[in-house]
Amino acid sequence: MRIVAATKILKANDQIAAENRALLASAGVCCVNVVGSPGSGKTTLIEALLKHFAGRISAAVIEGDIAGSIDAERIAALGVPAVQINTDGACHLDAAMIAAALRELDLNGLQLLLIENVGNLVCPASFDLGEHLRIVVLSVSEGDDKAVKYPAVFQSAHALCVTKTDLLPYTNFSLPRITADIHRLNPRARCFEAAALRGEGVAAITEWLTEHLNAAKAGAKASAEK
Amino acid sequence: MRIVAATKILKANDQIAAENRALLASAGVCCVNVVGSPGSGKTTLIEALLKHFAGRISAAVIEGDIAGSIDAERIAALGVPAVQINTDGACHLDAAMIAAALRELDLNGLQLLLIENVGNLVCPASFDLGEHLRIVVLSVSEGDDKAVKYPAVFQSAHALCVTKTDLLPYTNFSLPRITADIHRLNPRARCFEAAALRGEGVAAITEWLTEHLNAAKAGAKASAEK
Repeated sequence: MRIVAATKILKANDQIAAENRALLASAGVCCVNVVGSPGSGKTTLIEALLKHFAGRISAAVIEGDIAGSIDAERIAALGVPAVQINTDGACHLDAAMIAAALRELDLNGLQLLLIENVGNLVCPASFDLGEHLRIVVLSVSEGDDKAVKYPAVFQSAHALCVTKTDLLPYTNFSLPRITADIHRLNPRARCFEAAALRGEGVAAITEWLTEHLNAAKAGAKASAEK
Repeated sequence: MRIVAATKILKANDQIAAENRALLASAGVCCVNVVGSPGSGKTTLIEALLKHFAGRISAAVIEGDIAGSIDAERIAALGVPAVQINTDGACHLDAAMIAAALRELDLNGLQLLLIENVGNLVCPASFDLGEHLRIVVLSVSEGDDKAVKYPAVFQSAHALCVTKTDLLPYTNFSLPRITADIHRLNPRARCFEAAALRGEGVAAITEWLTEHLNAAKAGAKASAEK
């Protein structure tokens, strides 16, 4: 019974996710779902990306949290449009929440939409939001065994970003180990390293994102000309 | 429909949890549910507690992970009985999983049963396992805003253990802030600080646990004499 119910919910979610993705693609927006544990550094990475893109790329952010609006306030402080979703206890965002948030945003001229999921290395893996890219954020202080212990989210990602690399000297985290584990689980995933508070490693991620932003823009233009 | 289903599942869980708690209490076992984010340091704290209690307290551990048996192997290496539960994707332990694990353990003479939940600051809050105490583990590298962002798990806990305090000089984590947030959410929660890899701060937790171990033993004896 539980399995049937969960399958039904996921089917409905996938349909709304497909609608979100189509809406965003037609507007030329590249949408990125940022997932990771509580405190892995998702908001700080998003802030660093926004600072790097400031004045060059039009961006917006959807913040998912169980409670509060701390993160959306951090984003708004950068002058970037931010929509806060409070899940009211739910441990992940779903596509219907994103559909509601999209109605609050002006997609016209928008190039990059970053979604910060609820801090959770488990449940967000199962919920397609309609994103084009999924980035898993893993801080070195969480330990290098996390891909083995939480494989689904790493398998579902387009990229891994290892964060807080400035703490490497004070931990026993092994970059070769996590990279090997990721490539075994998900051979095509890109691996990045960053100390986002210092801005280190952010440029490589923005280069990779820029390729996808250009592809999204070209795709929307080609569709419009058909 | 989803809400009704969830309520039914939780009701069944609560009944099994009550049975687990009664079984453990009659055997004089104090059961502790250790929850926290992936990589917050739950296993390392459990190892430090076991080392401190070695030769004095009879302990066992139930390890909850989505996949793998890394943590149970770490515990077994200390010569402590360990049962690994693989949740096969589920983001939390439930009381039925614990009931199954209890059948694998010899409760006779056991004093302390530590349960390490799946790394998740959200879903485990809603699932009573039949424990007597719940400890939330929060590492300083996760940030001091976590009580505000994930209130339910902090509200449900008997104690907070702030871990990895050796990283305090390299982070902007504020102990006064998290302590104030916890006491606002949960005035009766005990607050501990530890650098468990170094064994720092562990003695205070074992003192607190010892009071509960003695109470569990006395309770079982009183029941048996009735």
